[in-house]
Amino acid sequence: MNKDIPVIALQRLPVYLNYLKSMPADRMYVSSGLIAEALEMGEVLVRKDLAYTSATGKPRVGYIKSELIAALEDFLCCNGSRNAVLAGAGGLGKAILSYGGFKNYGINVVAAFDNNPEKIGGSVVGKPVYDIEDAQEKIANLNAELAVICVPAQFAQSVADKLVASGIKAILNFAPVMIKAPQNVVVRHIDVAANLAVLSSMI
Amino acid sequence: MNKDIPVIALQRLPVYLNYLKSMPADRMYVSSGLIAEALEMGEVLVRKDLAYTSATGKPRVGYIKSELIAALEDFLCCNGSRNAVLAGAGGLGKAILSYGGFKNYGINVVAAFDNNPEKIGGSVVGKPVYDIEDAQEKIANLNAELAVICVPAQFAQSVADKLVASGIKAILNFAPVMIKAPQNVVVRHIDVAANLAVLSSMI
Repeated sequence: MNKDIPVIALQRLPVYLNYLKSMPADRMYVSSGLIAEALEMGEVLVRKDLAYTSATGKPRVGYIKSELIAALEDFLCCNGSRNAVLAGAGGLGKAILSYGGFKNYGINVVAAFDNNPEKIGGSVVGKPVYDIEDAQEKIANLNAELAVICVPAQFAQSVADKLVASGIKAILNFAPVMIKAPQNVVVRHIDVAANLAVLSSMI
Repeated sequence: MNKDIPVIALQRLPVYLNYLKSMPADRMYVSSGLIAEALEMGEVLVRKDLAYTSATGKPRVGYIKSELIAALEDFLCCNGSRNAVLAGAGGLGKAILSYGGFKNYGINVVAAFDNNPEKIGGSVVGKPVYDIEDAQEKIANLNAELAVICVPAQFAQSVADKLVASGIKAILNFAPVMIKAPQNVVVRHIDVAANLAVLSSMI
């Protein structure tokens, strides 16, 4: 889905969405110029990005804010909901589940996996925790396509392998290590320390 | 520091670093072609990015791996160490502290701040937890310039305002909301749900 939009543009859509949602509720219209100014971007780029969605701006007034939000959400949700699992039911996994916000994008986090016998069979933020060794059977039953990896670095690759073998199509990796996956699986790495280092280099 | 490198290139440096560190320890040389292939990037771009660092490749053999790692670390560390604080000593903050990896980039997380009386005065992963109301005094004493915000959305902006008023120059924001800061403060937002939504749109 949404294959026609460049990844770099796709990654900007949530930024627009966050900005629009942070505006006062009673604001009815929003122009690409206003968005561009607030986010320190070029107006042409903003208009081009938003044109990938179904939203249509009107001359002079811009977009109806609620319509633009709906169009962005629609686009990012691929017009349907998707199930996700968490690998690693530790502090980070728990925090990610608690922070939520997934529902806004049509993502249901349906279960967590762990290798710790004390956690398996229990629950984390209301979601069942299964044995990572049962990933294949469980993920098929849960119809999950997305996974968030929050296990320690040394387990990240083997966990990723198990998830991919279970049919997971996209992985968000928080483990501080690069993981490899087949070409048909999308992987994104969020390295907290590296992100902070980049910021540090900018000041 | 490092003002001459475009932000987009800067953000790729940790990716190279992670890849290089994931290679077998006994590998001595690495070429830009190999890096480009492994990371599915153009070789010219890789060479251009690495040229911002002090590393120099040799014809045919490429870079000495250990030198390239050192050059990337040097570059990202701004040739010195920087102190960081955590705002929000809850699950996410704790997990971020535990995951570590900051030291690799010359970043010392020196303290956490919270508004919960039960947490203030205690410690999280060995770091003291201070009252967010004392941020100004503490941050000056700690000589901290970086901050990671892991507080619930509704507190993120007021916490950011306090950090900025205390002299923080760069903020990594995990709260699921956009925060505003003066132009001289660098802010980066990591929205977990949005990142997963982007991946979801790509499959």
